[in-house]
Amino acid sequence: MSKKLNLLVFSGDYDKALAALILANGASELDMEVTIFCAFWGLLMVREENKFQAKHKSFFEKMFSMFTPNSAEKLALSRMNMCGVGKGMLKKMMKDKEKPMLKDFLDGARRKGVKFYGCKLSVEVMGFKKEDFIPELEIIEVYQYLKDASESDIQLFI
Amino acid sequence: MSKKLNLLVFSGDYDKALAALILANGASELDMEVTIFCAFWGLLMVREENKFQAKHKSFFEKMFSMFTPNSAEKLALSRMNMCGVGKGMLKKMMKDKEKPMLKDFLDGARRKGVKFYGCKLSVEVMGFKKEDFIPELEIIEVYQYLKDASESDIQLFI
Amino acid sequence: MSKKLNLLVFSGDYDKALAALILANGASELDMEVTIFCAFWGLLMVREENKFQAKHKSFFEKMFSMFTPNSAEKLALSRMNMCGVGKGMLKKMMKDKEKPMLKDFLDGARRKGVKFYGCKLSVEVMGFKKEDFIPELEIIEVYQYLKDASESDIQLFI
Repeated sequence: MSKKLNLLVFSGDYDKALAALILANGASELDMEVTIFCAFWGLLMVREENKFQAKHKSFFEKMFSMFTPNSAEKLALSRMNMCGVGKGMLKKMMKDKEKPMLKDFLDGARRKGVKFYGCKLSVEVMGFKKEDFIPELEIIEVYQYLKDASESDIQLFI
Repeated sequence: MSKKLNLLVFSGDYDKALAALILANGASELDMEVTIFCAFWGLLMVREENKFQAKHKSFFEKMFSMFTPNSAEKLALSRMNMCGVGKGMLKKMMKDKEKPMLKDFLDGARRKGVKFYGCKLSVEVMGFKKEDFIPELEIIEVYQYLKDASESDIQLFI
Repeated sequence: MSKKLNLLVFSGDYDKALAALILANGASELDMEVTIFCAFWGLLMVREENKFQAKHKSFFEKMFSMFTPNSAEKLALSRMNMCGVGKGMLKKMMKDKEKPMLKDFLDGARRKGVKFYGCKLSVEVMGFKKEDFIPELEIIEVYQYLKDASESDIQLFI
């Protein structure tokens, strides 16, 4: 029976999203079952680029949608100025080493069949709609996350 | 036999405390056994409001007690200005959706019998006394946390 | 059979490194097998002090090496000004209570046989060389981390 990796992505940081997606891709390549449950800022990682749904949104929700990153590649580092290293420098260092970028890891995870879930409560509080996200994202309750996590071999909060 | 959820709450951020307590409440509702081990800044989440023990405290300890949040509701967001979203805006969005606040989730977890532990080393370093916390908090050594976590189905570091 | 603790240290924060190493030391004392997989900023925790390898490094790599902390004791707190508490104050509070410092916990973990791994991808992207780290650090692929984690009783992302 294959092993299971369960990630709860809470953070909306570029580097932490990168870590989550590298783990997800690696586990898929080992034939592990992988689920990523995006909650709070973690939802910003799975927004559908260039798609902005203003319909059925309150003033606050529109503001929130407009002023938060609208795709994985636009997330910021976990520290704006981590030891003087900016996101541009990190991306340059990755490019120089011919490593894939966050977007490539996200696309890879999607292609490899990683299951993406969104936290219903977070989606509601933030005023997002299902259409704001990548199409395979399924919106679930925290109970489903807990059941899934309790049956997994590895659970991480990122 | 019921499943067990074990959370190590290290962070003193409002949004991460919220995530921890939502998980704790959800797991309790699924009849899982839940323990929350508060270490470092995580201890700020379980301080007893409006209670300030100056007795037996050094100068540094008094300063520390006075200048750190004295209850869950006073914690700050994990990013002061996460994408321009402040704590006030998050709370407003939650209120508009009629979602409970951090304090409600904390009270819910206490009512549902979630077990709260405090890290002995952290309590000592920060100069807190047992009386600074909610009464059900039990102060334990890291060894007890490790034993408990190793017997749990889900362990997360938040 | 002894239990296993597996830590993925992603963070380069002083307080989070301290938490990781306290857990690692505690688990070792309970005769648990402990592995620490350092990725991204977590690699800064296991740099060999006063060792700067400029050879075979690009301009960016040299900059990166020079402007990031070159040993565990030089890491910064997870919040520069967490509630007005600086690293100096935390260290003073620890010293007053006669608690060991980060360096002591790192040395303890090394003496107790905690296994230190470095993430190959992170090491390459950041331009580090094997010689930049404590000698027992072994550089491994994410696959090996996943296998190890999936066989552990506790896995945490710090």
